[in-house]
Amino acid sequence: MNNSMSVCVVGLGSMGMGVALSCIKAGFKTYGVDLNPNARKKLIEAGAVKSEETAISFSKELDVVILLVVNAMQVKQVLFGDNGLAQHLKPNTIVMVSSTISARDAKEIDLNLQKYQLIMLDAPVSGGAIKAANGEMTIMASGAKSTFEKIKPVHDAIASHVYNIGTEIGLGSTVKIIHQLLAGVHIAAGAEAMALAARANIPLSIMYEVVTNAAGNSWMFENRMKHVVDGDYTPKSAVDIFVKDLGLVNDTAKSLKFPLPLASTALNMFTEASNAGHGKEDDSAVIKVFSGINLPAKKGE
Amino acid sequence: MNNSMSVCVVGLGSMGMGVALSCIKAGFKTYGVDLNPNARKKLIEAGAVKSEETAISFSKELDVVILLVVNAMQVKQVLFGDNGLAQHLKPNTIVMVSSTISARDAKEIDLNLQKYQLIMLDAPVSGGAIKAANGEMTIMASGAKSTFEKIKPVHDAIASHVYNIGTEIGLGSTVKIIHQLLAGVHIAAGAEAMALAARANIPLSIMYEVVTNAAGNSWMFENRMKHVVDGDYTPKSAVDIFVKDLGLVNDTAKSLKFPLPLASTALNMFTEASNAGHGKEDDSAVIKVFSGINLPAKKGE
Repeated sequence: MNNSMSVCVVGLGSMGMGVALSCIKAGFKTYGVDLNPNARKKLIEAGAVKSEETAISFSKELDVVILLVVNAMQVKQVLFGDNGLAQHLKPNTIVMVSSTISARDAKEIDLNLQKYQLIMLDAPVSGGAIKAANGEMTIMASGAKSTFEKIKPVHDAIASHVYNIGTEIGLGSTVKIIHQLLAGVHIAAGAEAMALAARANIPLSIMYEVVTNAAGNSWMFENRMKHVVDGDYTPKSAVDIFVKDLGLVNDTAKSLKFPLPLASTALNMFTEASNAGHGKEDDSAVIKVFSGINLPAKKGE
Repeated sequence: MNNSMSVCVVGLGSMGMGVALSCIKAGFKTYGVDLNPNARKKLIEAGAVKSEETAISFSKELDVVILLVVNAMQVKQVLFGDNGLAQHLKPNTIVMVSSTISARDAKEIDLNLQKYQLIMLDAPVSGGAIKAANGEMTIMASGAKSTFEKIKPVHDAIASHVYNIGTEIGLGSTVKIIHQLLAGVHIAAGAEAMALAARANIPLSIMYEVVTNAAGNSWMFENRMKHVVDGDYTPKSAVDIFVKDLGLVNDTAKSLKFPLPLASTALNMFTEASNAGHGKEDDSAVIKVFSGINLPAKKGE
């Protein structure tokens, strides 16, 4: 296979759209699937061959399907639901599952794909919308060596780092989930530190600057605590995403019989923030679980 | 004052030695105090005016004293213990307290220094031995505006970032303690994530590489989890340092009546690691609180 491959991205959200645009840029025959007509229109204007509500009408054209829907339930719905895609794809089509899901779901999806002679790559991604649009995502994947070889031109187009974790389906998902453990704990720890600073009457802008120039910094602190300093909780990624992802983290730990003192605490914090009404706000709004402090207000408000 | 100032560094450990060497390099008349004769010899060879077990014999020469001893008890001992330094210094000598101490201790030390007409700068530092040696530390300080002005040439020589948190003694210490909250939680979270990866049979070197190239990264993860990947727990900074520093974090929270769900959990992890016999090992040895996993061994062992 080469750039004459046909690639379909299912789920044209911020990540999926970036991936699809990178595929077009790299010269692939690119297809897109989404329920949102604006996303479909945008992709067609960028040069996609087709973009529809399902991939069924062009399923026989496809060599690679990349799934970037929200969760495992949606992955299963797309592939195996009523008139699901799996039954329509050619044998040996590669199905790259890039949603954040549990290892157990990844294995179940793989077994079902095998019934249709389809090939799974367990391939979660990281990097955010901007990196996706620039073809610079990080992919952490597991699957057959031959699958990695066949899909390499696509990976080259959409990612700057591709990690082959092993052949066993589920390892890719597990690495992503462990990554999310760190991402979630770092946001919650950043919130805890900034809340304590507010309680101690430290100006949060100074606290932010000190930390980002010292060894206490994290990628998430630098990115998310800026929203707290600015008092702007417009969601880039919502509190409820981490209720889901840290839930997957804790499910994974349970299935491995392993204690997670920090990640379980962070999940409690995001869950409380969601129940207090902040689930759709930016994940930095987890700081609102702390009472008795004054946080910066958004400028002009 | 200018570079003709006389500066004495008390505590020639890795940070203090770096600070003293930076002062010599910048042309200050530099003095050093340490109980360790090798450290004193090294500083004399580098060009210090004098280096002794106490600063008493040259106390009247000094314009600035920088304290980089281990904790508040040592700061008090040096200044106010038997034949303590405070009674020997000239009035208006600046005493820059750079050890990590509580705001309460900082205020108590300030009140005692005032009795001797000495001027305190509450000025903890961050950055590690290499940055200290290169004059590139981060200083987070509080004190009188005039003190910052007088000491500026010294700060220019030893630090790349100087944050003036405010005039109230204790604010500098509090910022440092909140910084240590993040540093400690990030090490413990890194250990928790790597332990889960080991349990899931993810190669730790791959897990390390994925995280350090993605949004789950932190300064501490990148620096400390390398020691876990290498199986090398030779202490750069020991578990017991974080038992102390996270203890200060939790004391600070208690004095402000504030909950710290993550930092209290991280303190428990470091405390358990210390009680299990790992207190003098590298702080990344906090991962040893997790049973039922195989961690990488040091090469050649």
